[in-house]
Amino acid sequence: MAQTSSSSTRIPRRRSTDAPKTLPSQPEPEVSRALQKVLDGYFPEARADVRALLEDPTLRPTSGLTVEEARQHTTEALSKVLKTGMPYGAFRADQGGTGDTGGTLSGIEMLGHTDLSLMVKSGVQWGLFGGAVSNLGTERHGELVRDLIELRALGCFAMTERGHGSDVQSLETTAHYDPETEEFILNSPTASSEKWFLGNAARDGRWAAVFCQLYTPGQEESHGVHCIVARIRNDDGSPVDGVAIGDHGTKGGLLGVDNGTLMFDHYRVPRENLLNRFADVSATGEYSSDIDSPNARFFTMLGALVRGRVTVGAAAGAATRTALTIGTKYAHLRRQFAPDDSLPEKKLIEHRQHRIRLLPRIARSYGLQFATNLLIKRIHDLEAEGLDRANLTPEQARNLREMEAHAAALKVANTAHATDAIQEMREATGGAGYMAENLLTILKEDSDVFTTFEGDNVVMLQLVTKELLGGFAREVQSFSNLEMVRFGLDNFSGILRRRTGADAVVQNLLDALTDADESSLFDPASQMQLLIERENRLLKSLARRLRPARKLPVDEAVKLVDKVQDHMISCAWAHIDRMILEAFFEAESTLTDERSQEVLEQVRDVFFLSVVCDNAGWFLEQSLLTGTRTKGARAGLADLVDSLGPWSEVLVDAFGVPSTMLDIPMMEPYDAMTPKAKANPAS
Amino acid sequence: MAQTSSSSTRIPRRRSTDAPKTLPSQPEPEVSRALQKVLDGYFPEARADVRALLEDPTLRPTSGLTVEEARQHTTEALSKVLKTGMPYGAFRADQGGTGDTGGTLSGIEMLGHTDLSLMVKSGVQWGLFGGAVSNLGTERHGELVRDLIELRALGCFAMTERGHGSDVQSLETTAHYDPETEEFILNSPTASSEKWFLGNAARDGRWAAVFCQLYTPGQEESHGVHCIVARIRNDDGSPVDGVAIGDHGTKGGLLGVDNGTLMFDHYRVPRENLLNRFADVSATGEYSSDIDSPNARFFTMLGALVRGRVTVGAAAGAATRTALTIGTKYAHLRRQFAPDDSLPEKKLIEHRQHRIRLLPRIARSYGLQFATNLLIKRIHDLEAEGLDRANLTPEQARNLREMEAHAAALKVANTAHATDAIQEMREATGGAGYMAENLLTILKEDSDVFTTFEGDNVVMLQLVTKELLGGFAREVQSFSNLEMVRFGLDNFSGILRRRTGADAVVQNLLDALTDADESSLFDPASQMQLLIERENRLLKSLARRLRPARKLPVDEAVKLVDKVQDHMISCAWAHIDRMILEAFFEAESTLTDERSQEVLEQVRDVFFLSVVCDNAGWFLEQSLLTGTRTKGARAGLADLVDSLGPWSEVLVDAFGVPSTMLDIPMMEPYDAMTPKAKANPAS
Repeated sequence: MAQTSSSSTRIPRRRSTDAPKTLPSQPEPEVSRALQKVLDGYFPEARADVRALLEDPTLRPTSGLTVEEARQHTTEALSKVLKTGMPYGAFRADQGGTGDTGGTLSGIEMLGHTDLSLMVKSGVQWGLFGGAVSNLGTERHGELVRDLIELRALGCFAMTERGHGSDVQSLETTAHYDPETEEFILNSPTASSEKWFLGNAARDGRWAAVFCQLYTPGQEESHGVHCIVARIRNDDGSPVDGVAIGDHGTKGGLLGVDNGTLMFDHYRVPRENLLNRFADVSATGEYSSDIDSPNARFFTMLGALVRGRVTVGAAAGAATRTALTIGTKYAHLRRQFAPDDSLPEKKLIEHRQHRIRLLPRIARSYGLQFATNLLIKRIHDLEAEGLDRANLTPEQARNLREMEAHAAALKVANTAHATDAIQEMREATGGAGYMAENLLTILKEDSDVFTTFEGDNVVMLQLVTKELLGGFAREVQSFSNLEMVRFGLDNFSGILRRRTGADAVVQNLLDALTDADESSLFDPASQMQLLIERENRLLKSLARRLRPARKLPVDEAVKLVDKVQDHMISCAWAHIDRMILEAFFEAESTLTDERSQEVLEQVRDVFFLSVVCDNAGWFLEQSLLTGTRTKGARAGLADLVDSLGPWSEVLVDAFGVPSTMLDIPMMEPYDAMTPKAKANPAS
Repeated sequence: MAQTSSSSTRIPRRRSTDAPKTLPSQPEPEVSRALQKVLDGYFPEARADVRALLEDPTLRPTSGLTVEEARQHTTEALSKVLKTGMPYGAFRADQGGTGDTGGTLSGIEMLGHTDLSLMVKSGVQWGLFGGAVSNLGTERHGELVRDLIELRALGCFAMTERGHGSDVQSLETTAHYDPETEEFILNSPTASSEKWFLGNAARDGRWAAVFCQLYTPGQEESHGVHCIVARIRNDDGSPVDGVAIGDHGTKGGLLGVDNGTLMFDHYRVPRENLLNRFADVSATGEYSSDIDSPNARFFTMLGALVRGRVTVGAAAGAATRTALTIGTKYAHLRRQFAPDDSLPEKKLIEHRQHRIRLLPRIARSYGLQFATNLLIKRIHDLEAEGLDRANLTPEQARNLREMEAHAAALKVANTAHATDAIQEMREATGGAGYMAENLLTILKEDSDVFTTFEGDNVVMLQLVTKELLGGFAREVQSFSNLEMVRFGLDNFSGILRRRTGADAVVQNLLDALTDADESSLFDPASQMQLLIERENRLLKSLARRLRPARKLPVDEAVKLVDKVQDHMISCAWAHIDRMILEAFFEAESTLTDERSQEVLEQVRDVFFLSVVCDNAGWFLEQSLLTGTRTKGARAGLADLVDSLGPWSEVLVDAFGVPSTMLDIPMMEPYDAMTPKAKANPAS
């Protein structure tokens, strides 16, 4: 495992006159290796194992398959993933696993480089279904855990319902306990309660982890959402009596994942099928839980499943890096447009506008991967501690909640970046990018739903901001934004800078700032300060806008909270950008050779200046920057993409994308072309 | 044909204190009909005919077909389109057509509402292949024109080559004239000269209109790019000797279009196959043309094909309106997230953030359709004049060039908006939007390549700006940006406001402005003035940056021109936004009832304020707006989406999307849901 540096002395300060130097026009391939080492993060062995697996050309996605062929292909590929041993890391040693959380998360992320259907199928099986049984269940579910790890028991994660996507507290599926037979009766009371979009349901799943409202005899109200495992198919693949299974058929992508639906008709399962880590029902029907509040219990359960959110973001990041690698390599190969009849056509990368399409996106991918690496390390370390989630210390609780917000933020940031950057690479490669054989459209189609998976991005962003406002007691946690008004603002007495895992490096940078410093857009400490200031101002003004709502009647308060939704979303983005910048510094501090440091510094500058340019209006409105400086940011960004242009292939090589993804028709060099076909070739 | 108003008296001025009123919360369906009348533009009968055709449910796109099934389906549907008679409008009466250019363009646009494969196949056959033969050919090609109209001769438009996409002047395919046999010898001399991405090539095409460098005996240099028709398949569908045909297979969408490749191996075709409207070769091999400069000749030919660019933009617009209609209607149906346990879940449209996702995009679609209607009318009127393109008056030449830039601008604006808005609707409808049966992913996949079709958007934007700079003589027209430096700046002595077809209305607005007026972001005249000022400032500063290049050596000048690419692109967008605003005013001036005027005024305000918000940084840098005003723009936009929220379904109903596209599973109402499943339902 790589070391986290404890000092930032190697991140040089810059003055305002220190515009970045232009890099040598001849790139140095060894810089790729140094950068890849940092990008590969804290679990390089797991990455290397999966990277080796992905050199298998049969694991490359294929277009033109029927739905059944695609599903068959993915199910077979799942066994190959198991053979690497990677999935065992997601489970504790007492469950037959290895407890290498970080390794498994990094390994699942790596699958995203090639085939997102395989990544999702893996995520559903080992992450969501497996995660539910292993983290919400107890010893009595041990055999099922061992079976699901080794693919003897394929299962669905039956949370989402037709009427309830991101709002899972409102689920309608019911489980009533019947003490006579010691069974739960699973039922789908309405059309909107149909379980919906479930991977592994339409074809392969034998089991489902069913999220449902739990009722015990004599209790009018639900004890809240709980999870019960249930057989859904017999060994021969036919549905069991009491369960109706549907098939979503063709989707916008991810054809290899067999998404389907489930409906329960008073379907009885044994009492022991309740995943009883956080709550249980006795044989006679007594409900018990160590966690009093249904809300807190529910969020404790969700928290135990945070890894799904992490891998969705991380794998979207990997898919993006593949697309950027294809787009960048094509830009170094393809020539188009002679500036003049007397001159040869230029390579795409030699057009400034093309560099502007590529480099800020490459830079953002760098930052996102650094931030995701820190998140995965953080989860790994937390899990390694052996948390008892029902009985957390206040420090653990805070750390966990912070990490969950961190995961939500990076899920949004990675998936939104995927949607933008993969689309841009499709367009930047013209007609070639539209041919399925060149894989960009497959990456686009498959990644498209990642903004929706594991919570819609717009909902997730609001969740991040609620956590940032910080005043929540655990028991009032909820998806409702109104809670902010009721509970959030009493304790709000200033902004607490949330930890991102890069704390020591960042603190050193900030400590080095003095009043005498003139701020420079190229100075790391000034950069840090500017993004912190943005986040703080946005949060403070949000709190100011919300405060009056506390004295309003509910319907008025609801209206006010609705009006601040866009403000909440801006806060979350400001937080995300700050988090990425911090991750850059952490990564830079681990580099040892000067050239690599110089290159990565420019990549970070590109990221930072892009943030400034994209938000120039806000910085100007706030008088945090003058027009001269925002113009300077634009000019600086242009200079940097010129400097990094020749290095862009080195930058994407460091992503370490499996070579099968680059062995595509559009990468074949074709005949050198004459500048213009004016000379009379022999006919 | 609807009348263009000659007065703007009905567009009321607004003071800065006149923030828009909130519309009644109960929308009025008759407003839809009034708005649809304006949206349907100047050729409503053609629209109505195609709209009736599209109620045929077999013309709705289907997912899950094999490539062959999809192609078969589209080819059959083409015959149904022919039966409406719409394609005849693309051809002159002396060619067997009806000369109703505007009707055909509007009709092809309408196909975009449902199936872009059918639109593209129609566009390839009647627009591109048909357009090439009818507009570049002469009487001797009359029989072929009649055959191609009635689908007896299916053909490809063989322009693009593997090595040359948007840069068609650099094509490499050669045609050498052989006076011995009175034949042209077509040849593909290099791998990069392979004809590429051609619709109708892989399966159906019997003919191709081949763009190639023309050589005559004794001439070392090519006469430039010309077009020759050639048989590519025998009647039984086998390739003719001398032509090799390839198949692109699966693409990112448009599966119904049989894109393929062509290579010529010294393939001989009769001399008469040269499309000889603008140039000819005599039996003995003498080349002649009324247009001296090869560049001018080439751009004259391209100009005759401008309709392809128009329909690509227009159809992308129609597809976008379908997606926005689906997304908006779903937002009025779907409930998600109760603000509080005591309250029912809200409809998506009742969340402010959701309104912000929908309404600015709906507003832009309104503006784009108004602008596209004006463009189609302009082309129709020009063609109705019966232009002799080889001998244009200076006024005609200017008018034509301006119209071509207009078409390029709207191609970019419509296709970029399609990519953005269809994607947003997919995300805003969550998992439902990802199911192919709900059609959004099909619209997304099929429309995706429209940003590349008919010239990559980044290239087109630069072309628009070059035309705006205005100093070009026709003979120096070129795709090279360097020409701007050489020829463009001598004559550049101020900005000429280009006509967009809304001139009278706009002039009245501007005439009404006095120095005493306080400017208001809600006042039409101030809005107009601000967008004109933006366009002018950007163009003037671009010209200033380019001027020094005239004295530089070529390689230095090339570098300078490369550095202004992003500036050129900003100019083009400023022009596009201004053009859309003008089209809004034109449309508003034709409305007669007050409520519809009031609604459309708010839609225009949403468009305008979105432009201000999206470019706030620039307006602030330029001191054209203060921070107080850009904040005011954001607040005003928020108020407007609140006001228009309940009306959003009325707004999309006015798009008149064929009902088959809304007859999809996600539009089925499902059981009303309980606020929370807390009450104990009978088990």
